[in-house]
Amino acid sequence: MKAAIVTIGDEILIGQILDTNSSYIAKALDKIGIGTYEMRSVSDDRMHILNTLEKLQNQVDVVIVTGGLGPTKDDITKKTFCDYFEDELVENPLVLAHVKELIEGIYKRPITAINIEQAQVPSKAKILFNKMGTAPGMWMEKNDTVFISLPGVPYEMKYLMDNEVVPNLIAKFKRPFIVHKTIMTYGRGESLIAEQIEDWEDNLPSFIKLAYLPSPGRVRLRLTAKGIDEKILQDAIADEVSKLTNLIGDIIVGFEEDQSIEVVLGDLLKSKKRTLATAESCTGGKIAQQITSVSGCSAYFKGSVVSYATDAKIEVLGIPSELIATHSVVSEAVAKAMALAVQKMMHSDYAIATTGNAGPSKGDADAEIGTVFIALATPKTVIVEEFNFGQPREKVIDRAVSKGLELLYKEILKN
Amino acid sequence: MKAAIVTIGDEILIGQILDTNSSYIAKALDKIGIGTYEMRSVSDDRMHILNTLEKLQNQVDVVIVTGGLGPTKDDITKKTFCDYFEDELVENPLVLAHVKELIEGIYKRPITAINIEQAQVPSKAKILFNKMGTAPGMWMEKNDTVFISLPGVPYEMKYLMDNEVVPNLIAKFKRPFIVHKTIMTYGRGESLIAEQIEDWEDNLPSFIKLAYLPSPGRVRLRLTAKGIDEKILQDAIADEVSKLTNLIGDIIVGFEEDQSIEVVLGDLLKSKKRTLATAESCTGGKIAQQITSVSGCSAYFKGSVVSYATDAKIEVLGIPSELIATHSVVSEAVAKAMALAVQKMMHSDYAIATTGNAGPSKGDADAEIGTVFIALATPKTVIVEEFNFGQPREKVIDRAVSKGLELLYKEILKN
Repeated sequence: MKAAIVTIGDEILIGQILDTNSSYIAKALDKIGIGTYEMRSVSDDRMHILNTLEKLQNQVDVVIVTGGLGPTKDDITKKTFCDYFEDELVENPLVLAHVKELIEGIYKRPITAINIEQAQVPSKAKILFNKMGTAPGMWMEKNDTVFISLPGVPYEMKYLMDNEVVPNLIAKFKRPFIVHKTIMTYGRGESLIAEQIEDWEDNLPSFIKLAYLPSPGRVRLRLTAKGIDEKILQDAIADEVSKLTNLIGDIIVGFEEDQSIEVVLGDLLKSKKRTLATAESCTGGKIAQQITSVSGCSAYFKGSVVSYATDAKIEVLGIPSELIATHSVVSEAVAKAMALAVQKMMHSDYAIATTGNAGPSKGDADAEIGTVFIALATPKTVIVEEFNFGQPREKVIDRAVSKGLELLYKEILKN
Repeated sequence: MKAAIVTIGDEILIGQILDTNSSYIAKALDKIGIGTYEMRSVSDDRMHILNTLEKLQNQVDVVIVTGGLGPTKDDITKKTFCDYFEDELVENPLVLAHVKELIEGIYKRPITAINIEQAQVPSKAKILFNKMGTAPGMWMEKNDTVFISLPGVPYEMKYLMDNEVVPNLIAKFKRPFIVHKTIMTYGRGESLIAEQIEDWEDNLPSFIKLAYLPSPGRVRLRLTAKGIDEKILQDAIADEVSKLTNLIGDIIVGFEEDQSIEVVLGDLLKSKKRTLATAESCTGGKIAQQITSVSGCSAYFKGSVVSYATDAKIEVLGIPSELIATHSVVSEAVAKAMALAVQKMMHSDYAIATTGNAGPSKGDADAEIGTVFIALATPKTVIVEEFNFGQPREKVIDRAVSKGLELLYKEILKN
């Protein structure tokens, strides 16, 4: 069972819009055991689309196309599907009724000829009703390959994937199982890990694949097993994880169940009834932002003081100006004082503080570009670590955010 | 001049990682007049990569490949390039010296055999030196098509695109000009606009293309002109924009700059010598984070209080608890008080404050899920607007951040 995902639209090819649909569709397919063989983004051009459909028909069982279904002249997917399937557009009364209800009933606008055209669909298509918008999805088949067309608007696409495409694919195809397990490691580089686990990697069973997913400060290792018996796959993965733990248990901080560090941390804080605050200089609020991206974080997150300017450190956090004068603003002493100050202000159990020079220029501080001090205040003590994350700015900020969360994670696990 | 962008990596095909590289590359190519014909994401599989390179060689002038250059076994791009170009890997002494300097000199780690392998490159490749990491970029040619391989880590890819790929492409190819103009409209649907401008659209010169980019509440219209004389293209676009303004001037709110709003705002604040602070509740520090992603922001950004918990609003910002009791924490009065409080604390000219319920559950407040109040304190006054951004949480936060920055932008332009 293999799928291909095709995105239609010049806006993607000129970099004006980021394609997030393909990733969502791939994840949804993976969950039901359908592997994505390839993703393509092509232009709003009839011949280009036709060639793409034809090529993919020989390679995969399912082709999911998004985009080009709008009501305007640059939307040509429906007409191109008609050419490809030697079909013609006919008005679908159910779709027309839905379009009318949406435009006249909900949006309270007069219906136009262009709106009515949305109800024109290829006569051979099975219609996937789109409750979220006017453009319906379509399901068509040719020589054992299923072609599915979905609107490009993300929430309309998501609605149709979840409610129409996935159930229909499950009903039609017998699928294998795909089991993933992602192991999170912190604090060691990709190449060092690779050397340590080389023998183990060489001896993995052929149905298990390993991938390295490095990002600043951490490496995730993803094991993927594919086969017809889910139990066998689960057992084999568990077995390999245990071998891996023997080799690099010291750097394994957990397993990603599709969960990010901020979700894992949130669950830990909640279960231990502990709270968190942050005082951020060089990270500019990004730690707070990451923590608050998780719903329900009000149970454990108090808030943050983003003391970007030196004045803000003195006046808002109450860091003594002499301390800054003596040690400089990017220093162990200031990081420590910031963490303790915000812990006290916000009445939190834990507090993370960052002060550093993210670059690209020297700025206020004497510190080298890339230097960051990260402090963690706990209920009992305060620890500080110094890092140099090099350049560019974006990397320094991201690594400081990861390191801050990692320090907290390790500390909470101890208690 | 046509390009294709290929991303290699199973992590993209299972939806674990979102491909942001292709969009960055497409934008960079578009700026120098190279259109992207197609984007593809393919698996870490030798035959799949070889077939893709072969197919694209006949279709485009430039193929840019990202990913698969890491030091581990699942990284096979270099070996596959050797197969494709009938070449072999040789150790490059300059790359080796750079890898050693990075690992031993900066990361302070012993160099490993796997690190040293990073210096192995195809003998026919022109090396694109990667100051940001250990994996070099490569430039190879076959039958008039240029193949460029870049690391998948975004900041390494960006460094090489900006500093190596773009300058080399400019030197090698004579390119046409591409001129885009994106017109932002608010408050009318895509199909109504299409009806209004149908005649104009039908009469566009053949070298100008129109695209509709609808998103909730607004439609952007993008005009693209391609040709050899930049002046003629600019004039023709200006001419069409003026005709369009005659037709739908009532809904045109502006033109989209190539620059992000935080960069535009930063330049404005700097040139007017004004400063900014934020008090964020539902946006959780994301406004501060966006502002501080711009280097040099210390010239105009003071800091932020992320008062996520109600207590933090009272104790850190000093919002009277009676005010919260009377109006509720998600209210016009509280947003206003937050903006004024942080403006005073941080001694800033402007202050943005947000308070709302991002959902998915009701939380502390009585307010409907999706409701957000955004306040802007200026040197003279304070204004507040109420919004309901619906759901999901992510959308509420992102729209509140955009709206907050937009309010400030409009206000600064007035003065």
